[in-house]
Amino acid sequence: MSTTFDDILARVNQCSKKKLAVAAAEDEPVLEAVAEAQRRGIADPILVGDEAKIREIALGLGIDISKMPIIKETDHEQAALKAVSLVHNGEADMYMKGILDSKTFLRSVLNKEVGLRTGKALSHVCVFEIEGIKRLLFLTDVAFMPYPSLADKETIINYTVDVAKACGVLMPKVAPLAAVEVVNEKMPVTVEAAQLTKWNEEGRIKDCIVDGPLSMDLAIDPTAAQHKAGADKRKIVGDADILLFPDIHAGNLVYKTIVRLATFKNGCILTGTKAPVILTSRSDSFETKINSIALAAVVAEHLQQQKMQ
Amino acid sequence: MSTTFDDILARVNQCSKKKLAVAAAEDEPVLEAVAEAQRRGIADPILVGDEAKIREIALGLGIDISKMPIIKETDHEQAALKAVSLVHNGEADMYMKGILDSKTFLRSVLNKEVGLRTGKALSHVCVFEIEGIKRLLFLTDVAFMPYPSLADKETIINYTVDVAKACGVLMPKVAPLAAVEVVNEKMPVTVEAAQLTKWNEEGRIKDCIVDGPLSMDLAIDPTAAQHKAGADKRKIVGDADILLFPDIHAGNLVYKTIVRLATFKNGCILTGTKAPVILTSRSDSFETKINSIALAAVVAEHLQQQKMQ
Repeated sequence: MSTTFDDILARVNQCSKKKLAVAAAEDEPVLEAVAEAQRRGIADPILVGDEAKIREIALGLGIDISKMPIIKETDHEQAALKAVSLVHNGEADMYMKGILDSKTFLRSVLNKEVGLRTGKALSHVCVFEIEGIKRLLFLTDVAFMPYPSLADKETIINYTVDVAKACGVLMPKVAPLAAVEVVNEKMPVTVEAAQLTKWNEEGRIKDCIVDGPLSMDLAIDPTAAQHKAGADKRKIVGDADILLFPDIHAGNLVYKTIVRLATFKNGCILTGTKAPVILTSRSDSFETKINSIALAAVVAEHLQQQKMQ
Repeated sequence: MSTTFDDILARVNQCSKKKLAVAAAEDEPVLEAVAEAQRRGIADPILVGDEAKIREIALGLGIDISKMPIIKETDHEQAALKAVSLVHNGEADMYMKGILDSKTFLRSVLNKEVGLRTGKALSHVCVFEIEGIKRLLFLTDVAFMPYPSLADKETIINYTVDVAKACGVLMPKVAPLAAVEVVNEKMPVTVEAAQLTKWNEEGRIKDCIVDGPLSMDLAIDPTAAQHKAGADKRKIVGDADILLFPDIHAGNLVYKTIVRLATFKNGCILTGTKAPVILTSRSDSFETKINSIALAAVVAEHLQQQKMQ
């Protein structure tokens, strides 16, 4: 079972080499990350963007881009459409944002002709390896969908279970989080958490174990969880894999608290797309960008194997 | 300026000695904590409860309770009313929960004749000293008020500014938190955060600096905050003192994430009461209980000085 980013990297090396289409690749941190991803054997980049700028940046940073095809396109919107269509057509396996703005990038993801939409909503998962926790944590949604409905939450669980499975977590434990661990009708999120749990017990939500509502200590703190009343009747006792947040505020505030206070590795991708999409932010570290590419690679392999079945 | 719990303890020693009324004091962890608080000179307990059980526990734990008055009352509800009335009548300065259940305890706090209600809503503040952050953080509301309205948030800010001032933070910086740092009308919490900021600028919310909406990195991560667009125009750049959460789910999930992942000291009290009320949970550590008593003592001193003015 995969429990670390090193395990994810080991899985990547067992997969066929994946191709990474980069939209508006003329960006220093992105070029640096994709070059390192290629050097480590994680993915082979295809750069779409302003060739002169790309070559200038590569020269300045001392990056070898000789093995990266370059498709010339100085217009950001056109560069995005050309890059995403490579993935749409199967010429590349995953799609990454360069220097263009997020709105233009997302429009290309959602483009009806050449994009990667599935008809369902997009969401986002951020995978953490945190010092002191001996497994990967899958946080969702901390960045994309503001106020998921109950139906959205079911969809998000299905997306994230697939990502967890791609990382080698075969039967992930899903914690629909709240401030409390009992249903309180004045707190709709607890009612929804109980419904998701019921759907899991009835077999409607598959390939995972859902137990909610769950407070954060019951989800990730085995010592505290064991001392809680009723802990003996729970399916999750401090050992959750997937943390499902009530809304983007709770998710993002926890996400950034971890980034500020913990020692960690992480990587994030969009979910709900036909192929993995990497939308790193400028504040993400070099290693986070590379981890995101590795995460995308194992998810791409997983999606491709699902299709073949 | 106070920045640690050691500073709070130093302030306690400069105050007149405070008396602590304990409701249903026949509880091992509570007796152990109040005895240590007395030993350290933080407060003098008055125990209300089952005398035989209190003496038995004290004997078993080797605790000296010879300097603690005991008011006999085996019924929990009556014990709570007797204990809270000591504070109501000025015979004690602060009120602490013993072994009785939270509902009964809170009913006594809200009792119209002998309780500590001010007419305004109750809230809660949890004060953290976290390794790597060189100041106290005041988190509110992570435990009590589920979905504060805009008016509630104004009230909560006022409460928490008073607690911060009692701890020696004279002009606290208040961060109304959200997933994002710009107003987005589809996210009501960001609109409310902007309104709170405006009320502060207009002088309606006093004695503090409010700047929101703020993401967690802008609130507590100076390095990340400095790299954000528009950081030069913000009043808070990673140096917030008070973290105001959108709702109890966001607050409690962050609170327990800190407890799980950080090295910290903390203490918590109710706010919106005439005198400080300590409602620790059984999962709180021994030190957290003592820190909560110390926090209550400086707040009691602050409230008493306000009254005299």
